[in-house]
Amino acid sequence: MADEHLIEHKVSGVQVYAGHFLDVRCDQVHTPDGGSATREYIVHPGAVMVVPVLDDGRLVMERQFRYPLGRVMLEFPAGKLDPGETRQACAQRELAEETGYRATRWARACVVHNACAYSTEGIEIWFARDLQPGPRRLDEGEFLDVCHMTEAELDLLARQGELTDVKTLIGLQWLQKWRAGLWPLDWVACA
Amino acid sequence: MADEHLIEHKVSGVQVYAGHFLDVRCDQVHTPDGGSATREYIVHPGAVMVVPVLDDGRLVMERQFRYPLGRVMLEFPAGKLDPGETRQACAQRELAEETGYRATRWARACVVHNACAYSTEGIEIWFARDLQPGPRRLDEGEFLDVCHMTEAELDLLARQGELTDVKTLIGLQWLQKWRAGLWPLDWVACA
Repeated sequence: MADEHLIEHKVSGVQVYAGHFLDVRCDQVHTPDGGSATREYIVHPGAVMVVPVLDDGRLVMERQFRYPLGRVMLEFPAGKLDPGETRQACAQRELAEETGYRATRWARACVVHNACAYSTEGIEIWFARDLQPGPRRLDEGEFLDVCHMTEAELDLLARQGELTDVKTLIGLQWLQKWRAGLWPLDWVACA
Repeated sequence: MADEHLIEHKVSGVQVYAGHFLDVRCDQVHTPDGGSATREYIVHPGAVMVVPVLDDGRLVMERQFRYPLGRVMLEFPAGKLDPGETRQACAQRELAEETGYRATRWARACVVHNACAYSTEGIEIWFARDLQPGPRRLDEGEFLDVCHMTEAELDLLARQGELTDVKTLIGLQWLQKWRAGLWPLDWVACA
């Protein structure tokens, strides 16, 4: 196989921490040269992010305190998959719960990996249109503000280094590529 | 304070796992409504990524097996800060160690946060020019291929959903914005 000189093979593995949220593993692996190494990582259920595009072109965003960084971050709506949930259902649920908006047209953009050195997490990015506002329903212990921003406002914040959340920057990248006709999105009707 | 309705305050914290690589914490916090919650997260030393631009415009990239994902990923060169190391020194060291290239012109683009829900990690993104090849010096247990790619090749992979590493996608975003004259880079001479 072409990549055999790069691939590591699992020898054994243990769960070293099981928290409310984090599932931490430590595996022993064989390295490509026949040696041994330890690999520590988080097992994550996967996540989705939604780029919600209002009829006037503005985006529905969130401001949320992120405890590990000790700061409020500007982000597109996102959340973790519930057990057995499809990614599209998760996208619809998170958008409705966190912002109150429901959408009837959806398009899947891509999956991205945000911490490939130490997490199994993949974030699937969806676009949503034909948005209708409604009541939101936050999880217990979840606090966030909803705001509306233009693409130009987001672009300026990114250029100035003030928009730092990776998934949100990639949402902006896809939004601008899609609007420029360069990266296509396949829209499907979905209540 | 404007964001007081979002901010959580630490009550207590313990280290729940200390591995070779991962430092996992579990803190008790006060939520903005006066309630209590648990926050679990990784304490990370910080990282840098380098977008190395060859004189012919191609980019120096790496293909590396990422064990948590079980696949080979295409990425710009990157690595964690050593204790006491500046981010610029780390950028120069990682570029030289992993690819063999040395650069004499550098520009800092931005810092991004790749897992704001569960890691303190920030990745500082640098651009490097006036590249000279030399011998590389990989860490023990590190295996990666170096390759050269054009911006158009990376753009196509991103559009097709085959380039999935977040930091690398944001490096492509900055590269295209910089080349279009939209997001400026301040270059400094640095051996």
